Amino acid sequence: MPWLNGRLLAAGEAWIDPADRGFTLGDGLFETIRVKDGAAVWLDRHLRRLAEGRAVLGIPARFGDAALAEACAAVIAAEGIEAGALRLTVSRGVGPRGVLPPAAPVATVLVAGHAGLPPQGPVALVVARGTCRNQASPLSRIKSLNYLDAVLARREAAERGADDAVMLNTAGRVAETTIANLFARIDGAWATPPVAEGGLPGIMRAEVLARLGAAERPLDVEDLQRAEALLLTNALSIRAVARLEGAALPEDEDTAVRLRRELGLPA
Amino acid sequence: MPWLNGRLLAAGEAWIDPADRGFTLGDGLFETIRVKDGAAVWLDRHLRRLAEGRAVLGIPARFGDAALAEACAAVIAAEGIEAGALRLTVSRGVGPRGVLPPAAPVATVLVAGHAGLPPQGPVALVVARGTCRNQASPLSRIKSLNYLDAVLARREAAERGADDAVMLNTAGRVAETTIANLFARIDGAWATPPVAEGGLPGIMRAEVLARLGAAERPLDVEDLQRAEALLLTNALSIRAVARLEGAALPEDEDTAVRLRRELGLPA
Repeated sequence: MPWLNGRLLAAGEAWIDPADRGFTLGDGLFETIRVKDGAAVWLDRHLRRLAEGRAVLGIPARFGDAALAEACAAVIAAEGIEAGALRLTVSRGVGPRGVLPPAAPVATVLVAGHAGLPPQGPVALVVARGTCRNQASPLSRIKSLNYLDAVLARREAAERGADDAVMLNTAGRVAETTIANLFARIDGAWATPPVAEGGLPGIMRAEVLARLGAAERPLDVEDLQRAEALLLTNALSIRAVARLEGAALPEDEDTAVRLRRELGLPA
Repeated sequence: MPWLNGRLLAAGEAWIDPADRGFTLGDGLFETIRVKDGAAVWLDRHLRRLAEGRAVLGIPARFGDAALAEACAAVIAAEGIEAGALRLTVSRGVGPRGVLPPAAPVATVLVAGHAGLPPQGPVALVVARGTCRNQASPLSRIKSLNYLDAVLARREAAERGADDAVMLNTAGRVAETTIANLFARIDGAWATPPVAEGGLPGIMRAEVLARLGAAERPLDVEDLQRAEALLLTNALSIRAVARLEGAALPEDEDTAVRLRRELGLPA
């Protein structure tokens, strides 16, 4: 039962206008929010990041944070989700033909619930060859609906027998993977690329950065290849990396297990 | 009256599933097709480019070209469009949560009609400072639904009192504008950036390229500033540029008028 523009609806009753700019131009944002014990996790941080993204795009708020929190709670309750995820999508709403946004857009706001969490076990990674992230675009730092480069890289990973793909930036350095931030332990010290390298400022990233005492510094593929361990983090999972480009990596499942335990993810 | 997935529908009866990957991830393509004298112009070329984009993204065809041509004709007839535009949108359709496409996607196919053409008169341009195109991504060469960089640049143009914005690539050279390909006459010879510089392979671009005998070569902002004339082309218009970054440019309205006449656009 999704919540759309102020109302909780039965499945099959929620529909998007074909002239919605989310559909026609990818003109919007989303957040993936973990549900634990029937409650949204770090909702305040997700709503803050969403507001920052709205500011970059110039999409006015249609609902206040309290109303959005109620919407999330209503979807969780209606679907009886104990552990899972919410997807909160905000588009610029309906517009006439053309790229220029309407002067007074009315956002489309959707909350959809998904029971269950993704796997937490070790991952096989490749480095995407077919596309890259553009760290010079502000879109690289907000969670916009323009996800097609990640879709291309994720398809490439599947074709090459991997679970996920590292996405490089236009300078050939590591940005993130298609769905996660990346941490590498090199010479005993954890590091992750700065957001300026083209990765999203993940909420789990910030949390793991602090817990590992990691440094923010640029990483290249050679750094990943000589790393003692790699970890992938997003709102729903913390996973060790078992293979990179087909080669086995020293796999630090212990650190992944410890972080998952500390942060309430399935061990 | 839009045509959606095989049926012509009354306005207000066409709706998109909120789980459509066009809406959730910008996972799709579109074409903007001119309507002249109640018929789609260069439809075969648009359908070929659409098929090329589908191949890049791995979206199987849901309808053959004959069915799409019938759909276009049906929308034109139902809306009584003499001069205007069709927007043909193809998304990867509904999918579960996550970036990985379903193994057997069923595309969403929408044809919407718009009466009337945009203005054809001279344009004030700025050079977008806030974002740029990523010529290293295959998305720069297909007409995908990921249009947010163009939306940001178009907002910037409006804020700076201009009609459109030149988008540079990550190397700082000219790619295109937010909605058009760009031609420059320099030392008496017309030139336009190669598609590898990050601009879309416009159908009108190919036509104007041939008619002007233009060269394909990289252009930078200084080239535009010293140009004797700039032209912008897309499926719906051919426009001269009157101002660049606030400075008046020698405006070659004669060439724009001649090309519009030759190509059946309003003089």
